[in-house]
Amino acid sequence: MKLATLKDGSRDGRLVVVSRDLSRVCPADAIAPTLQRALDDWEGAAPALAELYERLNRDAAPHAQLFDPRRAMAPLPRAYQWIDGSVYKNHGELMQKAFEVENTLAFREDEPLMYQGGSDDFLGPCDDIVVADEALGVDFEGEVSVVTGDVPMRCPLAAALSHIRLLMLANDVSLRNLIMKELGRGFGFFHSKPATAFSPCAVTPEELGGAWRGALVHLPLRVSFNAAEFGRANAGMGASFNFAQLVAHAASTRNLRAGTIIGSGTVSNADPAAGSSCIAERRAIERIGHGEPRTPLMIFGDRVRIEMLDAQGRSIFGAIDQKVAPLHG
Amino acid sequence: MKLATLKDGSRDGRLVVVSRDLSRVCPADAIAPTLQRALDDWEGAAPALAELYERLNRDAAPHAQLFDPRRAMAPLPRAYQWIDGSVYKNHGELMQKAFEVENTLAFREDEPLMYQGGSDDFLGPCDDIVVADEALGVDFEGEVSVVTGDVPMRCPLAAALSHIRLLMLANDVSLRNLIMKELGRGFGFFHSKPATAFSPCAVTPEELGGAWRGALVHLPLRVSFNAAEFGRANAGMGASFNFAQLVAHAASTRNLRAGTIIGSGTVSNADPAAGSSCIAERRAIERIGHGEPRTPLMIFGDRVRIEMLDAQGRSIFGAIDQKVAPLHG
Repeated sequence: MKLATLKDGSRDGRLVVVSRDLSRVCPADAIAPTLQRALDDWEGAAPALAELYERLNRDAAPHAQLFDPRRAMAPLPRAYQWIDGSVYKNHGELMQKAFEVENTLAFREDEPLMYQGGSDDFLGPCDDIVVADEALGVDFEGEVSVVTGDVPMRCPLAAALSHIRLLMLANDVSLRNLIMKELGRGFGFFHSKPATAFSPCAVTPEELGGAWRGALVHLPLRVSFNAAEFGRANAGMGASFNFAQLVAHAASTRNLRAGTIIGSGTVSNADPAAGSSCIAERRAIERIGHGEPRTPLMIFGDRVRIEMLDAQGRSIFGAIDQKVAPLHG
Repeated sequence: MKLATLKDGSRDGRLVVVSRDLSRVCPADAIAPTLQRALDDWEGAAPALAELYERLNRDAAPHAQLFDPRRAMAPLPRAYQWIDGSVYKNHGELMQKAFEVENTLAFREDEPLMYQGGSDDFLGPCDDIVVADEALGVDFEGEVSVVTGDVPMRCPLAAALSHIRLLMLANDVSLRNLIMKELGRGFGFFHSKPATAFSPCAVTPEELGGAWRGALVHLPLRVSFNAAEFGRANAGMGASFNFAQLVAHAASTRNLRAGTIIGSGTVSNADPAAGSSCIAERRAIERIGHGEPRTPLMIFGDRVRIEMLDAQGRSIFGAIDQKVAPLHG
C-alpha cells in the first residue's frame, strides 16, 4: 500500500491512503490519525490500511479525493529517529578522491558508515529548501530510505528485513561549505545537514514487486536539476550494504523504536552514464577530470526533482520537487 | 513547576505534575496527555499546568498520590531531537590531553561543539543501562539539559533564552571503547552513544530561582559511583557557552521544533576538588598524573547516581539512579 500525510495545520498532519496510480487519496483517520500512530501499532493498523487501499484502488473507498502532492507533508513530518547511511561505494570513493579526505572520512566495505540526522522538522516533497545564505553551498542528495518498526538491540541480520515497514525517497539536503569543517571536528554533521525532504508517499515493500530484492530497490533513481536530467543511478547497483544490514548495524548497541528512518546515502553507480544524485559528486568528477569543478551548487530559485519509476514508467513514490528559497524572501 | 511522565504501558507514558518537594504527583491528562503534547501547545497548556502545580503544593489537587521515581520514564520518553553540546572547557581539554586527539576533536571557545544524538528510546531515571558486553567500555556522563519550544532558524541570541521551557538532568551514557573509532571516521558518534537517561522531573527555569542566571545552572551536579562521591562540579562554572548560546547556535541553519532537548556536555570544573562527572575524565586525570588510568569503567551491577540539590539541600529534579545490566541477563 501507499500512504501519505496531508497538511491540515497540525504538526503531524493527517494520514491518508493513496491509490497505486497516485491519483486519489482517502482519509485513514478512522484507523490511525497519523503515520507515527500507525507505526506504533502496525500489527493493528496495517491490515485495515491495506483493506482501505484495496477499496481505493477499486474506486470503492469513501471520501476519496484527488491527490495533490503539493499538499503533502513528509510521510512522517517529524520522526523520533533519522539515521543516514553511506552505502554506495562509487560515491564514497569519488568524494574521497576529489577532496582528499581519506583519513577523516573512511568509506569502508567491512562496516557501514552512518550518521545521526535531525528528525524534528522534515520537509514535504514540494516544500521550499529554505536557507539563509546561498554561500552555505546548497546541494541535494537523492536517496532511498526505509522506515522500521521496533528493532531490538543486537537484532540478528536474518531478522532485520522483517522490521522494514515502508520505503520512501529522500532529499538529504546538504550545505557543502560547512561539511569539511564539521567532519574535521569529529562530532559529525550538524549545521551541514538541515531539514531533509521525503517523497509524497511511503510505500510497503510489496509495492515494489520484483524490484525489491536483496533488501535493495533495483530501479534507477531519476534526479533532475532545473528540469535537465542529472542522474539515473540504479539503487540496486553498487551498494556495499543493503537495508537489512543497515538496520542490523544501527541496532548494534541500542533498540530502534518504531518510525526510525534509515537512508541509503547518495545513490551512485560506477557507470558514468548513470550521472549523479548530488551536485558534489558531479563536481568531484569534474575536479578529477578537469582540475576544477564546473557545475555550480544550487542558488535561490534552482529546482531539484527526485523520482523513481517502475518498469512500466509509473511513479512509485511520487516526486520530490523542490526549489531553493531565501529565509527572508 | 515540575513535571514527570509515569509508566503506563504506552510509548509516551502519562504526564503528571510533581510537587515541589517531589513527594506527590497528580495526573495532568485533562490538560495534556503527554509532555510532548504540552510542549506542542505550551502557551495553552502551561498556565493550567502551573495552576495544578500550585494546588498540588497546597495539597489541594485531586487524585494526588505518592511519587515513586522508579515508576518514572524520561520526562520525554522519546523526543524528536536530542542535541548534545560540549561546553565545559576543562572536560574538553583533559580529554584532548589524555588521548592526544587535538586534531580530530577540537574543543574551541569561539564556537560550540555539538552532536546530533539518538532520541527515539530514552531511559527513565531508574531504568537499567542495558549493554550487550562490558567490553564496550560503559561510562556515565552527568549533564544539565534544556527542553525548547519552537525556535526559528537564525534565532537571535537575545531571543534564545525565551525559548527554553524546561530543564532536566541527563546521563549521556557512553561506550568509551567505540568513541575513538567513530570520531576518527568523521560521521560523529553513533554506536558509542546508546540510550540516554533523564532525571525524574523536568522543571521550569523559575524553579531554580537565583541559581538560574546567565542561562546556566549555578549549582553542583552531584555524581556518585557505586555509592561513593565521584563529582560535584558546579554547572555554572567553567562553561565556555551558556544554554542561550547553544539554542541560538543549534538553530543556525534550521528550525528547532518544540521538544528539542539540548545538553551541556559533561559538567566539569578546573578545581580538582570538584571531582568528575564521568569516569573517562577521571581516567584522563590519572593518565596525566600517573601515566595510566586506575579507575575502571563500569561493569555489570555498577551504579551511578546523578542529582542536583538546591541551597537548602533539597533535590530539584529527583535523582538519576541506574545500574548497568546485561542484555540477556
